[in-house]
Amino acid sequence: MKINELIDSPSELTDTAASKSAVVLMTRIRLARNLAAQPFPGWAREAQKKEIRDQCMQAVAALPQMKRGLAIPVESLDELQKQILVERHLISRELCHAKSGSGIVISKDQSCVVMVNEEDHLRIQVLRAGFQFKKVWNTINALDSDLEEHLDFAFSPNLGYLSACPTNLGTGIRASAMMHLPALVISSQMEKVVRAVNQLGMAVRGLFGEGSDASGSIFQISNQTTLGESEEEIIKHLHGVLNTIIEQELNAREKLIETDPNKLFDKIGRAFGILQNGHLLNSGEAMNLLSLIRLGIDFGVFADTQRAVVDRLFIECQPGHVQHAAKGSFDPNQRDVLRASRLRSEFAKLPPPDFTSAAK
Amino acid sequence: MKINELIDSPSELTDTAASKSAVVLMTRIRLARNLAAQPFPGWAREAQKKEIRDQCMQAVAALPQMKRGLAIPVESLDELQKQILVERHLISRELCHAKSGSGIVISKDQSCVVMVNEEDHLRIQVLRAGFQFKKVWNTINALDSDLEEHLDFAFSPNLGYLSACPTNLGTGIRASAMMHLPALVISSQMEKVVRAVNQLGMAVRGLFGEGSDASGSIFQISNQTTLGESEEEIIKHLHGVLNTIIEQELNAREKLIETDPNKLFDKIGRAFGILQNGHLLNSGEAMNLLSLIRLGIDFGVFADTQRAVVDRLFIECQPGHVQHAAKGSFDPNQRDVLRASRLRSEFAKLPPPDFTSAAK
Repeated sequence: MKINELIDSPSELTDTAASKSAVVLMTRIRLARNLAAQPFPGWAREAQKKEIRDQCMQAVAALPQMKRGLAIPVESLDELQKQILVERHLISRELCHAKSGSGIVISKDQSCVVMVNEEDHLRIQVLRAGFQFKKVWNTINALDSDLEEHLDFAFSPNLGYLSACPTNLGTGIRASAMMHLPALVISSQMEKVVRAVNQLGMAVRGLFGEGSDASGSIFQISNQTTLGESEEEIIKHLHGVLNTIIEQELNAREKLIETDPNKLFDKIGRAFGILQNGHLLNSGEAMNLLSLIRLGIDFGVFADTQRAVVDRLFIECQPGHVQHAAKGSFDPNQRDVLRASRLRSEFAKLPPPDFTSAAK
Repeated sequence: MKINELIDSPSELTDTAASKSAVVLMTRIRLARNLAAQPFPGWAREAQKKEIRDQCMQAVAALPQMKRGLAIPVESLDELQKQILVERHLISRELCHAKSGSGIVISKDQSCVVMVNEEDHLRIQVLRAGFQFKKVWNTINALDSDLEEHLDFAFSPNLGYLSACPTNLGTGIRASAMMHLPALVISSQMEKVVRAVNQLGMAVRGLFGEGSDASGSIFQISNQTTLGESEEEIIKHLHGVLNTIIEQELNAREKLIETDPNKLFDKIGRAFGILQNGHLLNSGEAMNLLSLIRLGIDFGVFADTQRAVVDRLFIECQPGHVQHAAKGSFDPNQRDVLRASRLRSEFAKLPPPDFTSAAK
């Protein structure tokens, strides 16, 4: 598979057939692994890095799960291609800036990715649309075991898997869910939720990880500790916290519709009107409008079949995807025009919102 | 004609058949007149005021122009009825607050109004949709002459017609045009225009006269001097100034579409989307959105037949009209719901904006 072919294929997240849930957009687990007897990427010399990369990429690409996928050195990708992979949550922003000696292997269905020589030698990642930790864990656990048959991972009986940064030591696991929490945002409860989640040892981040903002009311919630618990315990713990957040979000939705339905309908209605008629939309505003449409779908204001469309647009309205679709490089203002044009044509097909069932 | 019948009839401004123009929404002239040998309303005792009112209302109501119109003491009107007459630009806010002894005579087509015992004994007013000073002047001049045959006006050979406030002395005329100037507002030129207009001896006011804001980018421009020039000269002078403002507004529109059409289309498109889908709209926002639709009509984005609809909605989205339509008294939040509901149903019928001809 070539990079352009991959970019033009539906990803796990843009595939309209993928299963979707009301609050959890995506489940993701990544494992940090390093080769024994090799310096970490930050310490390795140019030649060593390339040697590590070749060894890792070869082993990863040979896995049955990666059959007919993409295996490519990062330096072969142009800026737009890298940006598109970031927007699909396949690679990190950090990897984009990596000098030479890094690589990426992506499965054909874009649900499994291995970043080579990012912070660690290997960052194995599996993601799935919806709330599916069991499935994701089984997949990544198998990937990890299969890889371990061909690569010698740095492992200490006391500490577990070794990693470049001590925060990943032990299991090397980071499990996360991308959650859509518009009602908690609208009712100004997010700050309280973040505080509580932090106290439970979990981290809350924006759409594109550390330091990114939460446009579209989308948050990534993940474990912080990787040491002292098994992978299953970490996932179970996170799962419990996520269920509590889901409950709080659903309660906040109930409350919104009970206390001031017109205020909510106004927000959802205006979002639809602007998406259907706007001519300039930056990605932040587009995300926020799409977020309200998704909330409308959950309230039965729009057909359930639209959820997959909105989830796809969450990704396709990002700057890289907008430029790719328009086949060129465009400045932010031109992108706003292109994005609005794209969203207008997507929303022109939709029947108008119907608030009758929501207002029951 | 009864007040409720009048309220339920189309006025000159809400009549969809009335002729409309691109920039001038309405032309209006009023004359201040007082009876000789009677104290001004501010000085008259209760009994005198009633005597003056009876005499004036009788004379006015007997005019052929007022045949089958409405003649009513202000104290017979409830608050909502008065508010509706203000919103139709038929009476002043001041008259609403008048104690006893004031009256109103309105012609059947709601184009001629005489306020009795407002600031002066008689405030004769004629208004017409569009830019029609000649027609309005001919009508009011005839009204004034006819009235003078039955009433003895206070007149000084040196000063002209006497008035309660010296700013109305002489001709007692105030000629004004209600102008829709969205492009001058969008391009931040209105302040400059107001300064220039003031220097030419004209006043610029908001939609509902002195001290009101210019929501909907609607401004009233009128003469300030009433002394030392004939009525015809005053009107001619104002006419010239208005033509200059029209030209500036049209230039500003050209510039908007030339320099950044997408920004303009975005504003017009969003306005349409919000009017079609909003659930909470206060009158200020409604006016501003309707203003953008009217601009869209002028650019050919919407059908020309919609101009009369928008001009009617400018008035029907005011608080009094909203409450009258819903047959009750409602607080501001409820009115915002009712207004949005009304606008949604009006705009649901409209075909979507078509920017192709505007973008030429």
